Amino acid sequence: MWLRTRNDLTFDFAVPTPLILMLRPHSGSDQWIAREEYRLEPHVPACEFTDTYGNLCQRLTAPPGQFAISTIAEVKVADAVAQAPGAPFVDIEQLPDNVLIYLLPSRFCESDRFGEMAAEITAGHALGYDQVAAIAGWLRERIRYVPGTSDIPISAVDVNLRQVGVCRDLSHLGIALCRGLSIPARLVVGYLHELEPMDMHAWFEAYVGGRWYTFDATQAELGGGYVAIGYGRDAADVAIFNQFGPPANETSQQITVERFD
Amino acid sequence: MWLRTRNDLTFDFAVPTPLILMLRPHSGSDQWIAREEYRLEPHVPACEFTDTYGNLCQRLTAPPGQFAISTIAEVKVADAVAQAPGAPFVDIEQLPDNVLIYLLPSRFCESDRFGEMAAEITAGHALGYDQVAAIAGWLRERIRYVPGTSDIPISAVDVNLRQVGVCRDLSHLGIALCRGLSIPARLVVGYLHELEPMDMHAWFEAYVGGRWYTFDATQAELGGGYVAIGYGRDAADVAIFNQFGPPANETSQQITVERFD
Amino acid sequence: MWLRTRNDLTFDFAVPTPLILMLRPHSGSDQWIAREEYRLEPHVPACEFTDTYGNLCQRLTAPPGQFAISTIAEVKVADAVAQAPGAPFVDIEQLPDNVLIYLLPSRFCESDRFGEMAAEITAGHALGYDQVAAIAGWLRERIRYVPGTSDIPISAVDVNLRQVGVCRDLSHLGIALCRGLSIPARLVVGYLHELEPMDMHAWFEAYVGGRWYTFDATQAELGGGYVAIGYGRDAADVAIFNQFGPPANETSQQITVERFD
Amino acid sequence: MWLRTRNDLTFDFAVPTPLILMLRPHSGSDQWIAREEYRLEPHVPACEFTDTYGNLCQRLTAPPGQFAISTIAEVKVADAVAQAPGAPFVDIEQLPDNVLIYLLPSRFCESDRFGEMAAEITAGHALGYDQVAAIAGWLRERIRYVPGTSDIPISAVDVNLRQVGVCRDLSHLGIALCRGLSIPARLVVGYLHELEPMDMHAWFEAYVGGRWYTFDATQAELGGGYVAIGYGRDAADVAIFNQFGPPANETSQQITVERFD
Repeated sequence: MWLRTRNDLTFDFAVPTPLILMLRPHSGSDQWIAREEYRLEPHVPACEFTDTYGNLCQRLTAPPGQFAISTIAEVKVADAVAQAPGAPFVDIEQLPDNVLIYLLPSRFCESDRFGEMAAEITAGHALGYDQVAAIAGWLRERIRYVPGTSDIPISAVDVNLRQVGVCRDLSHLGIALCRGLSIPARLVVGYLHELEPMDMHAWFEAYVGGRWYTFDATQAELGGGYVAIGYGRDAADVAIFNQFGPPANETSQQITVERFD
Repeated sequence: MWLRTRNDLTFDFAVPTPLILMLRPHSGSDQWIAREEYRLEPHVPACEFTDTYGNLCQRLTAPPGQFAISTIAEVKVADAVAQAPGAPFVDIEQLPDNVLIYLLPSRFCESDRFGEMAAEITAGHALGYDQVAAIAGWLRERIRYVPGTSDIPISAVDVNLRQVGVCRDLSHLGIALCRGLSIPARLVVGYLHELEPMDMHAWFEAYVGGRWYTFDATQAELGGGYVAIGYGRDAADVAIFNQFGPPANETSQQITVERFD
Repeated sequence: MWLRTRNDLTFDFAVPTPLILMLRPHSGSDQWIAREEYRLEPHVPACEFTDTYGNLCQRLTAPPGQFAISTIAEVKVADAVAQAPGAPFVDIEQLPDNVLIYLLPSRFCESDRFGEMAAEITAGHALGYDQVAAIAGWLRERIRYVPGTSDIPISAVDVNLRQVGVCRDLSHLGIALCRGLSIPARLVVGYLHELEPMDMHAWFEAYVGGRWYTFDATQAELGGGYVAIGYGRDAADVAIFNQFGPPANETSQQITVERFD
Repeated sequence: MWLRTRNDLTFDFAVPTPLILMLRPHSGSDQWIAREEYRLEPHVPACEFTDTYGNLCQRLTAPPGQFAISTIAEVKVADAVAQAPGAPFVDIEQLPDNVLIYLLPSRFCESDRFGEMAAEITAGHALGYDQVAAIAGWLRERIRYVPGTSDIPISAVDVNLRQVGVCRDLSHLGIALCRGLSIPARLVVGYLHELEPMDMHAWFEAYVGGRWYTFDATQAELGGGYVAIGYGRDAADVAIFNQFGPPANETSQQITVERFD
């Protein structure tokens, strides 16, 4: 399916403010960027680099006053993400070198604390994809998904205590549980067609059966329409913007995702 | 200055043909991509990766028959490239690790053969930027720049024998001469505003005074309007397309570069 | 100074156990490995890769029963680590791309929580090196360094609550405080000559004045004799071993560091 | 089998001379470095980095006068390298991203000139491993292997004209022929047990059947005992030393490889 995403960010800064942004999706094995815009208003010098996770990041210093960033992308994505019940657990010794980092605990996914709980949740399920599906199912049932309930990321331990969270929170807990089973898992930030209410979205991927598979505990069923912007160990790695210095007087963001094939 | 580049490539293949393309410019310290399109007709699955030089490369298999690739970019580039007469030679032991590869000989730049000649051409010039400027001046005077004279790349040794070449050929000889002086040098492929006749363009960069500087032996004066697509040791690294299997029955390419600030 | 480090690790595993190890120091700008040994007893197939932080990591599957790893290194290190009072804070926009990751919060360094506290501790100090020195001084005074008090890493928030910790804990808090001031900071794991009692050691580095500087809140004075094995955002990235599966029946480690110039 | 390699290099320089060395083998999937020494006499500051091919490189400035480098390694390698007659050609679209660079022509392997010749040599052989084996067999028959015949590398085109060469020359021609068939191929530099006469050695690898396989046109039969130091597109990438400035008054090298299980 073809999607047109649009993300309008506006800031009001008191002082010149360095920003590191992650707002440019890039083509990969699952999505093709056919058209893209990235406008700065006013236009300021900016440069771009690729981080260690392969994400395109933009660096600039926003001027004082109103500053607007507008990005548009036309993207071809899968009509339905791949699913693979029964795909086996990959033995640690068979994992590709560059996947190993996704086994480690991270800022918001304290996987070192979730081994036992993950074993309980997945008891009786075949090792691999089915364990992750069981985790996603458990999240759907037990953790209330309430958009807007948290502004700043909370970690998996806290999500588990509160039993409620935004998409990012559910994903963090899902990731921590997967890693607790020695299944590599990572956070994806991006857009989802027909997300209700429309906003940035976050979901997670787990590495089983020799590749990454998509999981989303906020949706009753796994469909398609996912546009990825950034991948990382958790939200600390894939903030769509990091700002340095005094907070903005005001920040707003408006997102739309339309289908247009 | 703001430039809009357009590149229309068409192929007619007899059989399914794997292609590796390098047609997506990316934002860097010297250019900002504000808008971009990359269309395939017919649309086929494609994916993208970053090569060891930091270039974005696209992989796909073109179907038999007519196949068209159309790319458009709106790019902010410098009005005039930086120049730095007097910028000093960087001692080998001070070069950043990732610059060292640009000291080595490569397919089309047999720098191991050009040490003596480079010393003669640059005799009397201060070490560093001035040597490279002397090389670019020598190329301008001695090697006739005739667009369209070679289809396939020829190496610096041959360019020096023939005394005539396209932009890529002059750049290869310039690079070989720089490396012969232990000055890191690399090829850049992209577009140049007001190039006559309009076509893909190639120029070179040399690392002196702690950064890369642009040189172009095909232009009487160094102005601005350069849009880089790919960087590499020479044309072997930055072909805008590599195709595998039987050659296309037909290939055409049309390029435009307009200013639109 | 020349140091000979020796690290003998023994395990007793019930089942074949995959291990990822980080036990091979490598030469860098501050240390030269003149001799090195890495023995496995019994010898099993092993391979090595370089992780995203540049560390050499070894992968193998330990057999059931006794398994011993013995590493020795003869290393030339500085007699005294570099210190640079007054070295300035580096503006975010001037930081090298590959340093930015060390600004982000991580598993054991919740820097997003420490901005205010870091500002208080460093009030009145010049931005940059002097702030980090103030943080190291504060840690020395306020957080009791008691080797052996924690087996598993605790995060900066907890270290701050408990006011006591091992070398790794003090470093985690130091790193969180630095990042809270937008100063990149990272954990280093390795050996320290004349550490009392002898054990693995951890310290931290901060990026100010255009390079990384060493800080160690566990030592009254910053001397020399540091041998680095691994660098990372925190202990999650630089565990000297990660094991998967049931815990070992027994693990022991013995370390010696001798001077031998 | 366990091998002990020793390489003693001595130089006599007139002036301080920057060197980039590639003399430290590292553990990989096919070899384990159990012990290693790397001595400089006199000892000078040196640092190390990993190049884009994954090789460990050492940088230092040799002082005027006598300078000696001595490296020793104890390495576990395969008793016999893997062979896989029938292993299939990997379609371009299935090749891993990081293998693609080994399809491109390079300084000493002008593969763009060898497509037709490669097709003739391999006519009638199954695509993949068998083609490469046919190329290695053809090299053995047609290109006289005479150690010591060339001091500086010559390229595949010249090797083919002269019909005689050292190990590196035969490998360059083999690589050019493989790439001419769209089979990725790379040069390996290192040591070989029982090589006659003992010296540095070079061989090549081709990517077929989903992995790299070893080929060596200088040996009547493919045995074991290979210790790899560096991998690259050709000898330009894997010189064991690159020196800058006036040539050394004298350079000597002595190599031994002993078995000691």
